[in-house]
Amino acid sequence: MKLLLVNPNTSASVTDLIRAEAERTAAPGTDVQVLTAPFGVAYIETRFEALIGAYAVAELAARHHGQYDALVVAAFGDPGLQGLREVLPCPVIGLTDAALASACLLGQRFSIVAISQRIRAWYGETVAHYGLGSRLASIRGLDEPLADIGNVQGDQSERLVQLAERCVTDDGADVIVLAGAPLAGLARSLHGRLPVPCVDGVSSAVRHAESLVALQPGSASRGSFAPPPIKPHHGLSPALQRLLASGPDVSAPSN
Amino acid sequence: MKLLLVNPNTSASVTDLIRAEAERTAAPGTDVQVLTAPFGVAYIETRFEALIGAYAVAELAARHHGQYDALVVAAFGDPGLQGLREVLPCPVIGLTDAALASACLLGQRFSIVAISQRIRAWYGETVAHYGLGSRLASIRGLDEPLADIGNVQGDQSERLVQLAERCVTDDGADVIVLAGAPLAGLARSLHGRLPVPCVDGVSSAVRHAESLVALQPGSASRGSFAPPPIKPHHGLSPALQRLLASGPDVSAPSN
Amino acid sequence: MKLLLVNPNTSASVTDLIRAEAERTAAPGTDVQVLTAPFGVAYIETRFEALIGAYAVAELAARHHGQYDALVVAAFGDPGLQGLREVLPCPVIGLTDAALASACLLGQRFSIVAISQRIRAWYGETVAHYGLGSRLASIRGLDEPLADIGNVQGDQSERLVQLAERCVTDDGADVIVLAGAPLAGLARSLHGRLPVPCVDGVSSAVRHAESLVALQPGSASRGSFAPPPIKPHHGLSPALQRLLASGPDVSAPSN
Amino acid sequence: MKLLLVNPNTSASVTDLIRAEAERTAAPGTDVQVLTAPFGVAYIETRFEALIGAYAVAELAARHHGQYDALVVAAFGDPGLQGLREVLPCPVIGLTDAALASACLLGQRFSIVAISQRIRAWYGETVAHYGLGSRLASIRGLDEPLADIGNVQGDQSERLVQLAERCVTDDGADVIVLAGAPLAGLARSLHGRLPVPCVDGVSSAVRHAESLVALQPGSASRGSFAPPPIKPHHGLSPALQRLLASGPDVSAPSN
Amino acid sequence: MKLLLVNPNTSASVTDLIRAEAERTAAPGTDVQVLTAPFGVAYIETRFEALIGAYAVAELAARHHGQYDALVVAAFGDPGLQGLREVLPCPVIGLTDAALASACLLGQRFSIVAISQRIRAWYGETVAHYGLGSRLASIRGLDEPLADIGNVQGDQSERLVQLAERCVTDDGADVIVLAGAPLAGLARSLHGRLPVPCVDGVSSAVRHAESLVALQPGSASRGSFAPPPIKPHHGLSPALQRLLASGPDVSAPSN
Amino acid sequence: MKLLLVNPNTSASVTDLIRAEAERTAAPGTDVQVLTAPFGVAYIETRFEALIGAYAVAELAARHHGQYDALVVAAFGDPGLQGLREVLPCPVIGLTDAALASACLLGQRFSIVAISQRIRAWYGETVAHYGLGSRLASIRGLDEPLADIGNVQGDQSERLVQLAERCVTDDGADVIVLAGAPLAGLARSLHGRLPVPCVDGVSSAVRHAESLVALQPGSASRGSFAPPPIKPHHGLSPALQRLLASGPDVSAPSN
Repeated sequence: MKLLLVNPNTSASVTDLIRAEAERTAAPGTDVQVLTAPFGVAYIETRFEALIGAYAVAELAARHHGQYDALVVAAFGDPGLQGLREVLPCPVIGLTDAALASACLLGQRFSIVAISQRIRAWYGETVAHYGLGSRLASIRGLDEPLADIGNVQGDQSERLVQLAERCVTDDGADVIVLAGAPLAGLARSLHGRLPVPCVDGVSSAVRHAESLVALQPGSASRGSFAPPPIKPHHGLSPALQRLLASGPDVSAPSN
Repeated sequence: MKLLLVNPNTSASVTDLIRAEAERTAAPGTDVQVLTAPFGVAYIETRFEALIGAYAVAELAARHHGQYDALVVAAFGDPGLQGLREVLPCPVIGLTDAALASACLLGQRFSIVAISQRIRAWYGETVAHYGLGSRLASIRGLDEPLADIGNVQGDQSERLVQLAERCVTDDGADVIVLAGAPLAGLARSLHGRLPVPCVDGVSSAVRHAESLVALQPGSASRGSFAPPPIKPHHGLSPALQRLLASGPDVSAPSN
Repeated sequence: MKLLLVNPNTSASVTDLIRAEAERTAAPGTDVQVLTAPFGVAYIETRFEALIGAYAVAELAARHHGQYDALVVAAFGDPGLQGLREVLPCPVIGLTDAALASACLLGQRFSIVAISQRIRAWYGETVAHYGLGSRLASIRGLDEPLADIGNVQGDQSERLVQLAERCVTDDGADVIVLAGAPLAGLARSLHGRLPVPCVDGVSSAVRHAESLVALQPGSASRGSFAPPPIKPHHGLSPALQRLLASGPDVSAPSN
Repeated sequence: MKLLLVNPNTSASVTDLIRAEAERTAAPGTDVQVLTAPFGVAYIETRFEALIGAYAVAELAARHHGQYDALVVAAFGDPGLQGLREVLPCPVIGLTDAALASACLLGQRFSIVAISQRIRAWYGETVAHYGLGSRLASIRGLDEPLADIGNVQGDQSERLVQLAERCVTDDGADVIVLAGAPLAGLARSLHGRLPVPCVDGVSSAVRHAESLVALQPGSASRGSFAPPPIKPHHGLSPALQRLLASGPDVSAPSN
Repeated sequence: MKLLLVNPNTSASVTDLIRAEAERTAAPGTDVQVLTAPFGVAYIETRFEALIGAYAVAELAARHHGQYDALVVAAFGDPGLQGLREVLPCPVIGLTDAALASACLLGQRFSIVAISQRIRAWYGETVAHYGLGSRLASIRGLDEPLADIGNVQGDQSERLVQLAERCVTDDGADVIVLAGAPLAGLARSLHGRLPVPCVDGVSSAVRHAESLVALQPGSASRGSFAPPPIKPHHGLSPALQRLLASGPDVSAPSN
Repeated sequence: MKLLLVNPNTSASVTDLIRAEAERTAAPGTDVQVLTAPFGVAYIETRFEALIGAYAVAELAARHHGQYDALVVAAFGDPGLQGLREVLPCPVIGLTDAALASACLLGQRFSIVAISQRIRAWYGETVAHYGLGSRLASIRGLDEPLADIGNVQGDQSERLVQLAERCVTDDGADVIVLAGAPLAGLARSLHGRLPVPCVDGVSSAVRHAESLVALQPGSASRGSFAPPPIKPHHGLSPALQRLLASGPDVSAPSN
């Protein structure tokens, strides 16, 4: 089984964190490939940065189309996830998507611990889009600028644990989600230090991607996740053109 | 890894279906044990029957306490699930819980196809309890009494496919969940016949249970899924008494 | 009119509190019987304890089937309520159910004052299940272990009043619900001391049970509260067997 | 105990229906007085008509202030209810308010059967305002103009039963609410003819008003249902002036 | 284009504030007329006061029927708005309605800054009625009695800015709504002083009223905002009688 | 005042429709410029196509940065809207955003009439993201492939009117929203033919953009719509680089 993880951030140090945690998690027969966005910002915190990241992920997903059994959009907030789920014939999973699935299997209400204040609005909207607002206890974030995005865990580990404690004590969280690719692997290293179960996005995404490939649920030929109808387009990269050409012909009813 | 699946229904034929699908799904190193409720009804369709099933599952979970790495409550509707999650130190997963986690990773809105009309209300309340009402496209059920609960798939396969088709066409489902232990394995045998991805509870639960054991998220010593405080009790089976004795002492603050 | 109140807790002292308040409330022609759960825990605070309590209530309701005009499940959180409503041909009311109905007739938003921190999650889920989350201002609870469950009112009366004050001032409550059978009668003794209307579960349940018996709304022969279809069962007490035998024959269409 | 029921419609024939059902329902010691709106429309179906009815009820409630132990706003849709609850020191109940409380104690989801198509939007907004949208299965209404508002029950009884049947079969209702003062008493005369429990507003309101008086929950001196702060006013009837003069002096903090 | 703004409060000083801001906002060709409620209270803070204000607005709207192209109900909380929208053939806009439309076009979540604590409940219910609860970050209000309703801006300007700051910092507001006719014009004078966009009701209502007149969307001959069916009425002012006479004849089907 | 409208579709014929309606709507002093996406698909119906469109709009918005007073994202579904609202210092409006604001000012519940079945899921998610799900009566779409996207109005006008009729009669819509840039101007040409008010996105967006510019609400220096913190980026066009350089320096606290 081949998993492609795409880091929508341009930070190679974050890609390294993702790769390390993905490799620790993957089953023996799983081949993990991790790519960095060819364009975009160092780490996505806002809707506009996510808009750029989504396009970057789409470009990479298209270039490597046919070379993986499942795609992981490896940023919390899942830029481009639902769009890619339409055009790709394989499972597509995001870090939020995956971490929330894990969290929901471990308790009733979860909190998200994040790397900045600013990122909270975007994460909150992502959770709401997934219809899980009633299970979200809180989102708490670090409140200082990050000195080094690739070393947040080292610099801020104690502070992140404190935030998680407050999520449990003050907000009623049953589960903690450590959010964001820069925290990949932290859940593993905090094992036993938190008073409730704790999950992260990368390990959850790798496990769930493997599960979906194994379950063989089939793909969508109808409904809102079927490939978009083929139609005229303009100015797209050859990879994206090939991807769009895999949809149904628009001259047939589009239901 | 040892998984215990408990069938809250008393039908041995349904237990066989559960076992067969669980074994087809489990990873090589996973040992699957499937038990049948020692008391209850043949197949649970209502809140009252689920109340009985919950207690039967609790009794079995307590008797075998310490002998499994994860517990699967093997009826859609998840009788007793959240209570058991409090008292057991390992992952506890239900068929609804698990199937919905799979479905949410495959599309935005899902429909549930069920074995009777009557069962729809109970399933709907289960989905609502999980906070996923906004992603539920519909619940459709067979409308004739079941001749043989152990052979619903054989008797009703075409009718179930038709119901799934209507979920996609009329209700806007992106994913189909085949609900209920009596349909265990049907998603697998329908592979490629439905226009959208299709999942079932047993295979989803086995995969996700394995994932949660592998992820080692830790257990709850605080919050609403910590073990209940130890307190006087009366009239319980020795197994349940032992289980309750694993909680924190009530003389300490209970937060 | 005969009312049966079942205390799902095993504390006889709590049963006494329930009986005293029920007798103070009941109309002249109403005969009140109060029974204690034959098995379970001293006082229910969690989902798992409620699972046990639900089965204990079911057993007692079945044993005394036909001997009462309405049943009151006399613990806040209403263990087993909706299941029993299916199988019994008479009104079945719980303390939460009843207190919330009173509260909704007195204001727009209510707060719940409870006997422990731990119990809040279970109460919150109960309110959500009743679809009343948007009217819930807050749930506040005592934060120390209870010395004596039968004397919470004596020990903690001032602290409970303070919690109620904060519900009004900080949380915007229009009505206070004093929750839990151990607080039965407290609303009555606090009369005039709180700045907003205050209700409790036992008195509300007795009044509403009397009302439903008087209104003669009829019972359900269809829909999700009709008796479960008759089907094979196993290992149940004679009383539960008799109760299940009152449903419709499964060979008829089950709609 | 003195109950004042105010019919916000100007139809004396509807007032007679209300009075008859209220007297059938009231406990021996309850004195029932029913008044007709001194101005307004024959039967309220819309928001604008309800706006007028609310003012008419307020005027009558003010004129008779101090002469009743509880007030019933005797139109479904509850015109003026929440405003009157602020200014009156006694329980104030509406037909929707009361019927929904009854329905919620009898099942999980209810449908409303109404006297016209047009009235459905106003009823739906009333249910939503009470936060009970998730328990509303449907609102169905007669689709022909009413020949005689005082004789809807006689003219349309069979059609109303058919609508109730469809609410159960097609919409999943567990309980039927017969809505509107013109249907007062119909639930009683249909006893045993519907497949699920059935309630109406007038009998529910009388019972619940009696209960609230008996429970003595206290009144609001703070929160959003305390009397409005005293402040300058202009052009109001002497009765309304007296009513507004019962609030707290505005020179004190208004919290 | 003629706009009629009706102040449902009886304070002439507030009417002056409304007029000044409306005239500053109106386009060159727009003729603005502002009227004061002929009866009611000095400033509306509660549901009951709003009930009175609604009737006062209705009376004025009826008296001047046919003399304006759009009506603005010039109190936050929008007393009578939806009822008037039924009977009037032109756009009818309220201050809440209008300010929320502006706020929604400027960000995702908004907070409301108001002139008293008491008024918060009524405002909150208004926002909920408009279905915008998920976009409401908070409602904060002044907590001292108002010395002079016509000079709140002068007396409390700094305090209002502080409340707005807290809405942004503590509550996550993207936009501030300055609520209530007594604050008309304050958004304009605070320009540049707040860290997020800021709108008020009067200027928003004038702009949106002009837009709706210009867009010519048509009026409702069916649906829940069509004029109420003509039916018998009693005791109404000549103006209200004329207004009600503009609806469809009740002898036609009422759909 | 200069308005820039960007058509995220690549169809020049649709751009022409947008321009014509925008010019019909704009106030005398408003200068309207309409641009076509430099890359993307002919007409956006799905999440993936919207992902591409969002990036194309961002590119054009960046290239013309500083040359307009407000930006209109001229496709229903509003691709890129919320991201652009972060980075641009002027009002940014989308067709859904704008049409829903108009619809909410005209009635309580609205339906959307769209050009295809497929597009409904994307539109539904957009409405849900704006928190307006409770006001959405339905989304109905044409069910045949479009022969000519630039002439849908000519080809399908009668069918679109029929869909609108069903929204009113079957779904309870108070207002109709004609959705999608290809329908720009249709609301105007249907004037008087529908039984409820009818709005479209382009005319609404132009009016509301003009209003927001006139109201001068200020821009966000804090909160979730402040410009993203400046941080390292890679591979972006010069225009996007300039746009991102307008945010606050990341070395300052990012709150």
